[in-house]
Amino acid sequence: MADNKLVKEITSMDEDFAKWYTDICMKAELIDYSSVKGCMVIRPYGYAIWELIQKELDARFKKTGHQNVYMPMFIPESLLQKEKDHVEGFAPEVAWVTHGGSEKLDERMCVRPTSETLFCEHYKSIVHSYRDLPKLYNQWCSVVRWEKTTRPFLRSREFLWQEGHTIHATAQEAIEETERMLNVYAEFAEDCLAMPVVRGEKTAKERFAGAEATYTIEALMHDGKALQSGTSHYFGDGFAKAFEIFYTDKENKQVNPFQTSWGVTTRLIGAIIMTHGDDNGLVLPPAVAPIQAVVVPIAQHKDGVLDAAHALADSLEGLRVVCDDSEKSPGFKFAEYEMKGVPVRVEIGPKDIEQGQCVIVRRDNREKTVVAIKDVKAAVEKALEEVRQALYNRALENRKNRTVDCHTLEEFTKTAKEQDGFIRAMWCGDRECEDKLKEVAGVTSRCIPFGEDAIGDKCVCCGKSANKLVYWGKAY
Amino acid sequence: MADNKLVKEITSMDEDFAKWYTDICMKAELIDYSSVKGCMVIRPYGYAIWELIQKELDARFKKTGHQNVYMPMFIPESLLQKEKDHVEGFAPEVAWVTHGGSEKLDERMCVRPTSETLFCEHYKSIVHSYRDLPKLYNQWCSVVRWEKTTRPFLRSREFLWQEGHTIHATAQEAIEETERMLNVYAEFAEDCLAMPVVRGEKTAKERFAGAEATYTIEALMHDGKALQSGTSHYFGDGFAKAFEIFYTDKENKQVNPFQTSWGVTTRLIGAIIMTHGDDNGLVLPPAVAPIQAVVVPIAQHKDGVLDAAHALADSLEGLRVVCDDSEKSPGFKFAEYEMKGVPVRVEIGPKDIEQGQCVIVRRDNREKTVVAIKDVKAAVEKALEEVRQALYNRALENRKNRTVDCHTLEEFTKTAKEQDGFIRAMWCGDRECEDKLKEVAGVTSRCIPFGEDAIGDKCVCCGKSANKLVYWGKAY
Repeated sequence: MADNKLVKEITSMDEDFAKWYTDICMKAELIDYSSVKGCMVIRPYGYAIWELIQKELDARFKKTGHQNVYMPMFIPESLLQKEKDHVEGFAPEVAWVTHGGSEKLDERMCVRPTSETLFCEHYKSIVHSYRDLPKLYNQWCSVVRWEKTTRPFLRSREFLWQEGHTIHATAQEAIEETERMLNVYAEFAEDCLAMPVVRGEKTAKERFAGAEATYTIEALMHDGKALQSGTSHYFGDGFAKAFEIFYTDKENKQVNPFQTSWGVTTRLIGAIIMTHGDDNGLVLPPAVAPIQAVVVPIAQHKDGVLDAAHALADSLEGLRVVCDDSEKSPGFKFAEYEMKGVPVRVEIGPKDIEQGQCVIVRRDNREKTVVAIKDVKAAVEKALEEVRQALYNRALENRKNRTVDCHTLEEFTKTAKEQDGFIRAMWCGDRECEDKLKEVAGVTSRCIPFGEDAIGDKCVCCGKSANKLVYWGKAY
Repeated sequence: MADNKLVKEITSMDEDFAKWYTDICMKAELIDYSSVKGCMVIRPYGYAIWELIQKELDARFKKTGHQNVYMPMFIPESLLQKEKDHVEGFAPEVAWVTHGGSEKLDERMCVRPTSETLFCEHYKSIVHSYRDLPKLYNQWCSVVRWEKTTRPFLRSREFLWQEGHTIHATAQEAIEETERMLNVYAEFAEDCLAMPVVRGEKTAKERFAGAEATYTIEALMHDGKALQSGTSHYFGDGFAKAFEIFYTDKENKQVNPFQTSWGVTTRLIGAIIMTHGDDNGLVLPPAVAPIQAVVVPIAQHKDGVLDAAHALADSLEGLRVVCDDSEKSPGFKFAEYEMKGVPVRVEIGPKDIEQGQCVIVRRDNREKTVVAIKDVKAAVEKALEEVRQALYNRALENRKNRTVDCHTLEEFTKTAKEQDGFIRAMWCGDRECEDKLKEVAGVTSRCIPFGEDAIGDKCVCCGKSANKLVYWGKAY
């Protein structure tokens, strides 16, 4: 009954996906709203997920040779304006600081929407010779973009992220770096978030402001909408030219270096919710679950139950485990930890103790397994891996079911109308066709995938010769 | 020679302490300047020190039951104004955001100088019953205070910090929390930073804006100036009243809860520099040294030297160690790692290899010890602990030498003129005397120390009855 009560509080996914999403954000205690419009309070449970994402990614960044730094949060207007495309892309959506205390500033400054310009200024100060290259930097911080419509994690005026920034002697090295970091993101998404992604390149229209190429990982949410989950940008020497960054090469010539940047944000928490969640709440992939297993004692007032429950939790040391010995009913606890997406529950009651066993319940499918108490750690570890694999498989299945190849404009618009998901279709490369598909079918180009074969040779829109396969979809 | 060259580049401490300080910040590659006035770029080596400070403190915060959260970086003006003393203290030094994109905001917002007001708003939303208490939160973030005069780490317009915020059912609990966290700071400073501190309470004049009591740890720098290194504030129920935060207690009455906040900042890096540094550069306490030991091969072109050096570094696994096999001369390397404050250097050359030994050199006193290669790890660990202890002892000695008890105003002004340091003197508690001592001797009250006996019963300034012993000094 308590179970039903809690569950009743969230809207079902099929009834109203957007409301379901917001309900989870609130009921799983991931966020709270505040009087700061478009910004969110990230509560302990939500922040703990972000800390696990950070820890995992930071280790992968360090392993690939990157060092963390911290740049100022402000960018003077004149600095933001140095690279033309960049300022055009970002100026309309920045927050401007005009006063310090009671004094008006000589020059207004924006709160960083991204830090390319600051890194460029710093490179100019410290890069002089080929011996100074490459510099492989990363920054964990918050950034601000003045969005009109906001949603927790997915689109907010302030969000947390990491931004990698690197500078290299050659274009080749910079391109390799751009690819390497996209792969780091893709492997992290698939291994740790159990979220299958399509790796590919953005069309010119969807590129980062100032980039020569933008690579992306695109995931498909449960409702069939796409989510851009991480991007990696190759800048060529455009920024270096705009900021007059030069280095002396081995032939003693002054030349411009080449740059990249790459980032993922707290939006990944939104991706986790919409990829794995269900009508009972959040479902967390074990690698980023603040609690991987909860031990729930049954009939805990009976002799020896609480002791056995605590002993069970102790034997799970090394995992992130809690034993809930509060006075709430077991049913209430079940519902609560299901809402919070805890991947595995371990139940133990008087009868179990008699028989030297306990019950393991998976969050994703509620499958129960009875195991001997002495084997509990191995059994929980096995269950966690099974949850991870099952979440990945289910998400992949959803993507397969919602990915359709289209060869004509009629097919394309019909498919887009009937169901949300990915449409794979050939494209000639013209911006006009891209705009038209948005107009008639409401979709945007998600990416030109890496390593997938063409499915035809004519543009799905204009019928002219086409050699680019594109994933199209509605996106968050 | 290379050694001399590098060292020549920094001003000596005795010649110009301020210049010496800035030289270390730049030459040890801790920071860089940028076009953002009053803000700094924290470079990889500086940021790595901060990461180690964070890791150590975060573990101590979690051990004392605190959870990390993230609040918005903006505070609407009306929210900042809710607590009268607080807004008076902070409004004159905040940065104001007035525009989002091209639109003027209905209400301007400041970039957080500290987040009490945001936490209060959040508490109001989530605290309803005594069962919801306490909430023990912490936030790692950057804050902005529009300072006129700035110096790297010590005083900058933006700085990194952690701010703990807690809310409790009773005043007693909140006071205990305030004391507990001050002790966490003091133990961290002494154990990890090898920096002796005086624990005490601030006078009313020096209190945090809005606090009923502010506790502090005060350290004495090499030049005899004091540095406030961490503070912990007890708010009573003042904020709760201003923000109308109530909870239902066990007797079913609506009452106000009690609050605290506490913080340390990147200023601690400045404290490390000015407590331990010398004319050869930075000296890092081992717990926060990004590199704890550097292995430098001697005559590395000779057979077997590089292999032996790498093997030596491998055998130091578990410590933060690098083997510098670059083509720079050993002398250059010595000077470079001394500049960077690496606590222990290990040298190995052909003769050492023949004899199965290596040479360990301490950064703090350059003392050399010859040890058998097979014993190197234990020897380096021992040397690291010796460095920590020696740094602590030297700093304590400096403080002792620069702490003088004064009983008359004449003594007081004479002492303040002759040498910078702490003056211990009795004070009646009147603001007038505090102001006068500032006027005639140029010092401020640093704290009323915990656990130290009175040294008289008359105010050093007015001669009236006094029961408060106070530490006075010039401060950064």
